[in-house]
This record gives sequence, C-alpha cells and structure tokens, in this order.
Amino acid sequence: MNFLTNDKLTIVGAAGMIGSNMVQTAIMMGLTPNICAYDPYAPALEGVAEEMCHSGFEGLRLTYTSDIAEALSGARYVVSSGGAARKAGMTREDLLKGNAEIAAQFGKDIRAYCPDVRHVVVVFNPADITGLITLVYSGLEPSRVSTLAALDSTRLQRELARHFGIAQDGVTGARTYGGHGEQMAVFASTTEVGGKPLAGLIGTPALTGEAWDEVRQRVIQGGKRIIELRGRSSFQSPAYLSVEMIRAAMGGAPFRWPAGVYVSRDGFDHIMMAMETKIDKDGVHYKVPHGTADEIAALRASYGHLVRLRDEVIAMGVLPPIAEWPRLNPHLK
Amino acid sequence: MNFLTNDKLTIVGAAGMIGSNMVQTAIMMGLTPNICAYDPYAPALEGVAEEMCHSGFEGLRLTYTSDIAEALSGARYVVSSGGAARKAGMTREDLLKGNAEIAAQFGKDIRAYCPDVRHVVVVFNPADITGLITLVYSGLEPSRVSTLAALDSTRLQRELARHFGIAQDGVTGARTYGGHGEQMAVFASTTEVGGKPLAGLIGTPALTGEAWDEVRQRVIQGGKRIIELRGRSSFQSPAYLSVEMIRAAMGGAPFRWPAGVYVSRDGFDHIMMAMETKIDKDGVHYKVPHGTADEIAALRASYGHLVRLRDEVIAMGVLPPIAEWPRLNPHLK
Repeated sequence: MNFLTNDKLTIVGAAGMIGSNMVQTAIMMGLTPNICAYDPYAPALEGVAEEMCHSGFEGLRLTYTSDIAEALSGARYVVSSGGAARKAGMTREDLLKGNAEIAAQFGKDIRAYCPDVRHVVVVFNPADITGLITLVYSGLEPSRVSTLAALDSTRLQRELARHFGIAQDGVTGARTYGGHGEQMAVFASTTEVGGKPLAGLIGTPALTGEAWDEVRQRVIQGGKRIIELRGRSSFQSPAYLSVEMIRAAMGGAPFRWPAGVYVSRDGFDHIMMAMETKIDKDGVHYKVPHGTADEIAALRASYGHLVRLRDEVIAMGVLPPIAEWPRLNPHLK
Repeated sequence: MNFLTNDKLTIVGAAGMIGSNMVQTAIMMGLTPNICAYDPYAPALEGVAEEMCHSGFEGLRLTYTSDIAEALSGARYVVSSGGAARKAGMTREDLLKGNAEIAAQFGKDIRAYCPDVRHVVVVFNPADITGLITLVYSGLEPSRVSTLAALDSTRLQRELARHFGIAQDGVTGARTYGGHGEQMAVFASTTEVGGKPLAGLIGTPALTGEAWDEVRQRVIQGGKRIIELRGRSSFQSPAYLSVEMIRAAMGGAPFRWPAGVYVSRDGFDHIMMAMETKIDKDGVHYKVPHGTADEIAALRASYGHLVRLRDEVIAMGVLPPIAEWPRLNPHLK
C-alpha cells in the first residue's frame, strides 16, 4: 500500500462506533501506516485492533493503547470522537458538562504529550464547544484545531437532491455555517442545483417556500432521523468525514465542506463555529461567508447561540473566563 | 472518484453490522458507483443509505430497496451477509437450519432475478454450507460462487507475527484450508516468517511445539475472542475481506487469501471449502494445496466434517440429496 505520510495519527475513542470506523477508514484511505488507536476501555479497543489485524492490511503498523501519554507522544495528527454517550436520566447539562470536562483533559493531554501536533480534529458533541475547550487548554495555534461541522452541509446537499430528484453531486456548494442542527445557518446563496442558483429557485413552483422549509427541517432533523432508523447515532458518516479532514491536513485531497474553526474577527469573537474553511498542511483557514442579509442575520443568531453555550460552560467552571484564556493559550489574544 | 466498473453490485443484508460496513467499504474502494443496498428490514436499511449520502461521496449512485427482485435484477456482482443472528435459546441446529433456508431462498432469487451474475460472495455462517446451498439453488456455474474463508488465514498471519514479534506482513503465505475454526486445516508448509520457512521453525526454541499449538488455538478462537472483547461478533474484518473478494472478481487487485470454492476433484466431492484459490474476472479457480502428509490428513479430516454438516442439511430437507443436484443446477454433475 502507498501511504500519504509516515507521520503518527492517533485516533482517540477508537473502541467506539465512530472511532473504530475511523480506524478502518484511515487505513483504507491510505493516510499513514503509523496509526495509534487509543481508548480508555481496553478490551473493546483490543477487539478493534484485532479486527484490523484480521483484515490483513499490507504495510500497516497499527498500535493501540489505553495509556494517553503513550497514545499522544509523537502524534502529528489526532482525531477524537472520545466523548461520553448520553445515558438514561442524564440532562442536556450533564452531558454538556461531562463532555466539556473530557475536552479540557484532552486539551491538557495534548499540551503535555504532543505540543507539536500538526492538526487535531474534534468530533464529539457539542463539537464546536468541545473543540473550543480543547483549543484553549492545548495551547495550540488556532489553525491546528478544527471540528467536524460538515454533516449539516452534506445533509443539505442530500435533501436538495432528493427534492429535485437528481444525483446528489448535481447539487454543488451546499453550505451551512455557524452551529449545528436547530442553530445552523443555511446559506442558499452559495448553492447550485443542476447548475442553477438555488436562490433563484426558492419561492418558485420548483421549490416553494414551504418545500424549502421542509428541506431545511429534514436537514436539521438529519441526525435524529438516523437514530430513529438505525436505533443508534450516526457513526459511519461522522467517521468518514472527519478522516477526510485529517487527509486534507496531511496534504491530501482538499476537504470539500465547512469545518468548525476558531473565529475572532468581524464581530465573531472567541468562538468556534463553522465558517467557509480550507484545510491544508498549515492547518485550517477561514473566511466569513458572503450571503444575503437574511443569511448573515442567521449566522449572527447562530453565533449568539454558541456564545450562550460557551458562557454556560464558563459558568460551570470547566472553561475559564475569556480574559484568562491567553494565560492558558498565548495564541488566543 | 474513479470506479473500477459501472456494473451493479448488490449488497444483501446491508442494514446489518457487516452489511453496512460492506457498503462503505465498497464505496471507499471505488468498486462501482452503482451499488444497491438490500435488506428486508427497511428502516435500518434507509438509515445506512442516509449515512452514506451524508458522507458526500462524489459520483456515487447508491440505491436501496427491501424488494429482492429489484435488488437483484441486473446485478453483476452480489455479496451477502444476510444470515440470521443466533438468538437466545437457539440451538446450533436451529441456527444451521435457519441460515440454510435463507441460503436456499437466496439461491432461488439469484436464479430468478440475476442468472447472469458474474460473481457471488457468501459470507453468512456457516459460509461453506450456505455458499454450497446458494450454488445448488442458483443454477450458477461453480466458478461464480465463493465464500469468505480468509479470516482463519489472516488470524494465523497475525498470531505468528505476534509470537515472533515482527510486523504482520513479515509473515507470508499464511494459509488455512478446508473448514473454519476447530475444523480448519492449518498449513505450515506454505508459510514463511521473516523469509524463513515456518516448517523449519516448529519444534525449535523459536517456536516450540507447545507454542505452535498455542498459536493455532488462538487462530481457532479468533472469532470467539472478538465477541469477548467487543461484545459483538466481528464485522469490520469480514466486511472488508469479502469486498476485497468482489474487487478481485471485478478485475481489480488480486485477492491474497484462500476463498471457499465448490470442489469436486481428487476425493473432495460435492462440497464447498477453502482451497488455494484465485479470483479473477472469470470467477474463482482452485487447486488442491500441496502439504505434508499430516497437513493433507488434516485437510481430509476437515473435508469429512463439512461432509457431515452438508449431510445434516440434506437430512433436514433443506438441500436435496446429491443425486438430485444436477436437476437444480446442471453445472453440478
């Protein structure tokens, strides 16, 4: 097999459904032979590693460990789906606090064991918040951390294709920015359907205002729908897309979707959110998207939601007040 | 994306853990844009298809259906993991009978809807028996049907690499033939470890007879071990390897492991079992492996086990007596 690099890629949460799919996806994509699978739950982790060995991949040099120091030492790329799952009786706040604490520890571990990591992709929910916390505690440059934010955009592409009855890749430039689900900002102005601007179709018989609302609702409910259909959260699509992000960061094929990125410009400050991004060997770069007044208003509303979520985590004491961030991470002025 | 072919590939059992991984694996391997996912359980099937859509694969033309006629019509390649899982209180015989009946129907469906299929890979357990039943009822030429049998060989490679503390692909020619698990025939004479014949190492301090027995025991218990570790049957490795078999049948990279094949030669008659095989555009071809007297004896013993299993299914009435096979499938004389 030919690999894109020999650099060490560490997959955090590798015993889980997303993580174990990430391991297989990263191998199949030919990213690097030097993959380290990490999970605190050792038996299932070993099971995943054994399955990869039983697949007989040529050239693979897979390692696995439940020791985070060993996992991260020397890592040049890290992708983490290592959050906690929602358990019965858990409130939204319990889940937020739990994953926020995991992200804080993850950031500290990066600082301790792989401060020279080239790129970190954070996948566990709420990814914009856990990614932000990871960034603050890691001490990394903001361009070194991105979060999975593509699923809303791919779902928009898929739902538009369904509505118009065309092949999915006949819809181009499908983009949502800001936060996820209910809070995302859908940008119609960047999208084309079979070569025609989507904006010009909305409100016509081809896509009535009602039908467009329905498309957006289906996008928002996309993750919930997978749970209803499969009886479990989506795992194949987040695994695949986040490994595509790592591929781009390694210098491979460009990542074609928005990523969550640390933003501190143009009235979007001290936040992580999906923007128009490019991921390359130097990390993640962004620009604030252009759009109609309504779209920009939606983006600002989405930002406002993320600010409230961030402030909630600050109030919980998991993330320090913004004024203290530069002490933890001098790159965050 | 570049695809190996535009021919239709149907994945049977696509809502299951193995099947859904097969769908993703086949897409990522770039086999064909023309993949049809089939499963009788429609909601989970739709969930799998949605996850693939949410991954944003370029050029993909995925379809899905719970109608077997629609699924198989026009299929040039078929891979099936569509067996039943063992349920609480089920005896081994219950499971065997259930999957044998599924295989009989699968064979009839192939005959009805895709008699011109180029290759069919059968994965569900016991694969040698379900593959044989599929072949008999399908009316296909024997070279058009193979079964997943590689996992014992990849596990042998993995366990030898573990014992000798070398990279897995430093072990070459690891081969088991015949049936699976307890009944497989391990061939040491084909294997090299770091360039040295394994046969010359067995019984030396490098690999005592006891250590060799231990390696073989670990291979036999490989599948059971995954269940202990992960709390579920292996799914990533069978999915990956069976899709590699389809790739070879499409004219892609050669499949590097033994496959189960219909055998009727040299005292191995009217049976499906792992032999030394090659899979190419014309299907699966085999030769009886060379080995020591002990190895050949083990292969004959493995054959004897499969004969008893086959005769058990004949006694159940799911498979007709051998004398009647040519009436169902004129290629089986």
